[in-house]
Amino acid sequence: MEQAFVRWLRQRLPGHPRLSVGPGDDAAVLVPRAGMQDVVTSDLLADGVHFHLDQAGAQRVGRKALAVNLSDLAAMAAHPVAAVVSLLLPRHHAEKIGPQLLEGMLPLVETFGIAIAGGDTNTWDGKLVISVTAFGEVDLDTGPLLRRGARPGDAIIVTGSFGGSLMGRQFDFIPRVHEVLAMRKRFQLNAGIDVSDGLSLDLWRMCQESGCGAVIDTARIPVSDALQQQWPGDENVDRRLAHALGDGEDFELILAVPTRDAERMAKDLAIPVRLTQIGHFVESKGLWQTSADGSLQPLPVCGYEHV
Amino acid sequence: MEQAFVRWLRQRLPGHPRLSVGPGDDAAVLVPRAGMQDVVTSDLLADGVHFHLDQAGAQRVGRKALAVNLSDLAAMAAHPVAAVVSLLLPRHHAEKIGPQLLEGMLPLVETFGIAIAGGDTNTWDGKLVISVTAFGEVDLDTGPLLRRGARPGDAIIVTGSFGGSLMGRQFDFIPRVHEVLAMRKRFQLNAGIDVSDGLSLDLWRMCQESGCGAVIDTARIPVSDALQQQWPGDENVDRRLAHALGDGEDFELILAVPTRDAERMAKDLAIPVRLTQIGHFVESKGLWQTSADGSLQPLPVCGYEHV
Repeated sequence: MEQAFVRWLRQRLPGHPRLSVGPGDDAAVLVPRAGMQDVVTSDLLADGVHFHLDQAGAQRVGRKALAVNLSDLAAMAAHPVAAVVSLLLPRHHAEKIGPQLLEGMLPLVETFGIAIAGGDTNTWDGKLVISVTAFGEVDLDTGPLLRRGARPGDAIIVTGSFGGSLMGRQFDFIPRVHEVLAMRKRFQLNAGIDVSDGLSLDLWRMCQESGCGAVIDTARIPVSDALQQQWPGDENVDRRLAHALGDGEDFELILAVPTRDAERMAKDLAIPVRLTQIGHFVESKGLWQTSADGSLQPLPVCGYEHV
Repeated sequence: MEQAFVRWLRQRLPGHPRLSVGPGDDAAVLVPRAGMQDVVTSDLLADGVHFHLDQAGAQRVGRKALAVNLSDLAAMAAHPVAAVVSLLLPRHHAEKIGPQLLEGMLPLVETFGIAIAGGDTNTWDGKLVISVTAFGEVDLDTGPLLRRGARPGDAIIVTGSFGGSLMGRQFDFIPRVHEVLAMRKRFQLNAGIDVSDGLSLDLWRMCQESGCGAVIDTARIPVSDALQQQWPGDENVDRRLAHALGDGEDFELILAVPTRDAERMAKDLAIPVRLTQIGHFVESKGLWQTSADGSLQPLPVCGYEHV
């Protein structure tokens, strides 16, 4: 399987100016760009844990495995460069699934101009496991956008909308790479994270790393169309909010932005995504919401904790 | 599990001058060195396929998962820099196994001066899967040592000895990183590969990529001590040869070296490993052995094909 798959890969994958040695040797070789730092991220997805292969199909799974890594690069405000893909395929469908996984990645490969540099292919009697490691780069001067760096007073800006990932978006989301790069070119961003495990949990992690807290105006959290359709009306507002805060796999970004930049950002038509200020960072650690009488109450942290 | 494991990792892992952002953010950040190319390799190992966790123990498995990647970097004559580690842990032993896997890697981390830059940790009801991606670098001027590049007339030089990997060496081998770097500094190397799937199969792959063939003097193939002890005496010479040619997981290097360099190399005391010339590359494609009457006969290609 492996040799035939590598031959297929060599023919199917487009070349890339940064890839001087591609799949088939002991390792791949990438040509660096002067003045850049390397950003590296890795995510492993398994059938039955992160997806159900028989429901999703191999193409969507392949797409997702690459997309979650690109979302991590977006959270670092890194330019994507390349990815390596390691597969552990169920023996009886290996020859079908391997190519399908890669085919699912190719639209993202094209959209984000990356190279599939190499990887490893194995078969076994267990379920599908796919591990992708992605490489990006940031200017040495600008540096990466980290989780730490949010300062009390900064606006909490989110891209897109939240909740309802199980209704399909967990596979079909667009990693916010182009969006964050466009924002960072024009505005100061102090910190960033992508929402993989839930808006409240990932915001809490950002606060933890930054040594501060966050006050959320829950009414301003943008809720996904899928949630609106499934639970419409005023009577479902709390249910929608709970999903938006805790569903996870939104793969939107949470950004800490100085107030002045946040105001200018809202009027900037060059940013290719809906942006919403859902609150601001504060000195008091933890997550808070404003109650009806204007006082602060703790906001429960919920989301998908890896156990 | 994941958050606690990342906290443990942050404390346990030594810092590294090249790692400006380590485990715990959305991605890791590595500081590049001017004038270098990036070399990337990835290997995924699974319980029941590449090892048996209950027999080997998690520390040896962790060591191996990193060592096979370092062996790939050695085959490219690359200086190791960093690795990322993605784990899929059996749920009921996750908290014990995760740290043990990493502990098994730490001696290699120290020996080869690399950073564990990050990774991903998950649990499931299946067997242990571990995926490591390693990064190295080569001088832009020198470039990587590839599988292609062997020329008819080049000597076939191998490091160490072959066969009997199942008797322990598959876990405890030393990746030939220091050795190949010392050799390349002093001599011309035209091509290289590490023996993961079997001496004859990997030599055949090198020939395929180089567009040539190889003649082996089978009597000169260095056989491991383990094999000598298990099958001693003249009556077992064919059996030892079959194991040396096909066992795989020796993680020694096969190198294509111009004759003059090969002769000088044999007398060089600065090369920290036993080197043996087992034959030479020829125009005629395929693998060949010299028979008693001096004529060439085809040498069967055997080894571990990934199916």
